[in-house]
Amino acid sequence: MRHAYACPIRWSDMDAYGHVNNGAFVTYLEEARVDAFFRRGAEQGLTGLEGGVVIRRHEIDYLKPVHYTDLLRIELWVPEVRHAYFRVAYEGFVGDAQVCTARSVLVPYDLDAGRLRRLTAAEREWLAQLADEPAERA
Amino acid sequence: MRHAYACPIRWSDMDAYGHVNNGAFVTYLEEARVDAFFRRGAEQGLTGLEGGVVIRRHEIDYLKPVHYTDLLRIELWVPEVRHAYFRVAYEGFVGDAQVCTARSVLVPYDLDAGRLRRLTAAEREWLAQLADEPAERA
Amino acid sequence: MRHAYACPIRWSDMDAYGHVNNGAFVTYLEEARVDAFFRRGAEQGLTGLEGGVVIRRHEIDYLKPVHYTDLLRIELWVPEVRHAYFRVAYEGFVGDAQVCTARSVLVPYDLDAGRLRRLTAAEREWLAQLADEPAERA
Amino acid sequence: MRHAYACPIRWSDMDAYGHVNNGAFVTYLEEARVDAFFRRGAEQGLTGLEGGVVIRRHEIDYLKPVHYTDLLRIELWVPEVRHAYFRVAYEGFVGDAQVCTARSVLVPYDLDAGRLRRLTAAEREWLAQLADEPAERA
Repeated sequence: MRHAYACPIRWSDMDAYGHVNNGAFVTYLEEARVDAFFRRGAEQGLTGLEGGVVIRRHEIDYLKPVHYTDLLRIELWVPEVRHAYFRVAYEGFVGDAQVCTARSVLVPYDLDAGRLRRLTAAEREWLAQLADEPAERA
Repeated sequence: MRHAYACPIRWSDMDAYGHVNNGAFVTYLEEARVDAFFRRGAEQGLTGLEGGVVIRRHEIDYLKPVHYTDLLRIELWVPEVRHAYFRVAYEGFVGDAQVCTARSVLVPYDLDAGRLRRLTAAEREWLAQLADEPAERA
Repeated sequence: MRHAYACPIRWSDMDAYGHVNNGAFVTYLEEARVDAFFRRGAEQGLTGLEGGVVIRRHEIDYLKPVHYTDLLRIELWVPEVRHAYFRVAYEGFVGDAQVCTARSVLVPYDLDAGRLRRLTAAEREWLAQLADEPAERA
Repeated sequence: MRHAYACPIRWSDMDAYGHVNNGAFVTYLEEARVDAFFRRGAEQGLTGLEGGVVIRRHEIDYLKPVHYTDLLRIELWVPEVRHAYFRVAYEGFVGDAQVCTARSVLVPYDLDAGRLRRLTAAEREWLAQLADEPAERA
């Protein structure tokens, strides 16, 4: 199951070229994760990820320029959940047109202790619900 | 030859976790490119890249957290120059510690015409000076 | 008549203190203006402001801290319209609590010509609809 | 005595109009304060302001457009120090041209306790060194 996020674009996300700056997309991915993992997690009593999660790696492909008046939708899923990290995949759309794809590796982090931690069983189970395309993994 | 850029960090680049946000690094890479390709290019009469260059892809690995008081140095080089695109590689350091590595694919863009363009011969020659590690290409 | 704007807050708008950074509010004011003057203007064929408008002055009072989970509403009105500039006033609310007030002076700008310009009669008439509290000015 | 800060401008501070966005100036003021109050304070063992200081009010006048290649200097001073707040004034220059002026009201904040606090005597004495225009106070 994918998580779909209607991502607000700000006028100031555009740069001097008159298109959304490449750096803003990284914030859009973050907002999609915040919606999927922080807001929805809090609704289910899972606040650990909001309490600390670190980006280990990003890959982003930029496919089409985006303008502030575009209605951007980020679809997000979790292709892999391990004890010490999980992967997130994304596709960004304006209407039917795919404007970006991305992949991230995230590591849970204990902010108070100042060190990485493992995912709990409850977190792994919850994240696994966002796995996509089970046929491909059969 | 690598291009080294002393990258200013802003206090507001830090997020609620008290570390520089992952999105700010994408801006740091941009500032390193702006220094290497726009400012230096303008000094040599090569203003075409400033006039328009598009990010096609980014890969970033985050290796260590960074704080606003850190002195960040971004080293940048150009491992590949083709007619229609070029690649940029980066390493970020705080002192001797490597804090991030990254790779980008860039495509020159004719902003007035609103379409991609090819690199000129002068641009290719200039970018080739930033190739690194000549021994590997021998 | 006031224009009300439901202003999305991003997680990364928060700074290391765990509250929305003061600078983000300036962007919120901009988004409220973009919604009122660019998006709505375009719907009515008035695209001149989107084509160029310059901030001459801002005053902002910060009344309460704001968190990324807050639902922020910006109310905006136009207390004064002159030939060469107009004033915008704002109040920000989270629920019933007022979190900020602000005032701006805006000047239309001809981006192509690179110089300030006067408001057209159609623009002045349209902006005057956003005047607030006529009783007070009677 | 004024504090002078050479303020780095980022290419992405420019918006679609090709000038530095008005919101970026608020960040520039913050960077000037961080330099004056956090970095210099830490050098003298005064870390209380870095530990928490809240903006109560900003006023900014924008006098000239700024481009990313401009060398921006922010001069900052402290016209008033009270027990519960202090005022900061700023002037921004590109070369000899004044590009902005601003005034802020700042309130020290105890981040751990989550409430405002008073300035210590040591902080007031230190801030008073940044008072400007001694002739006026004679």
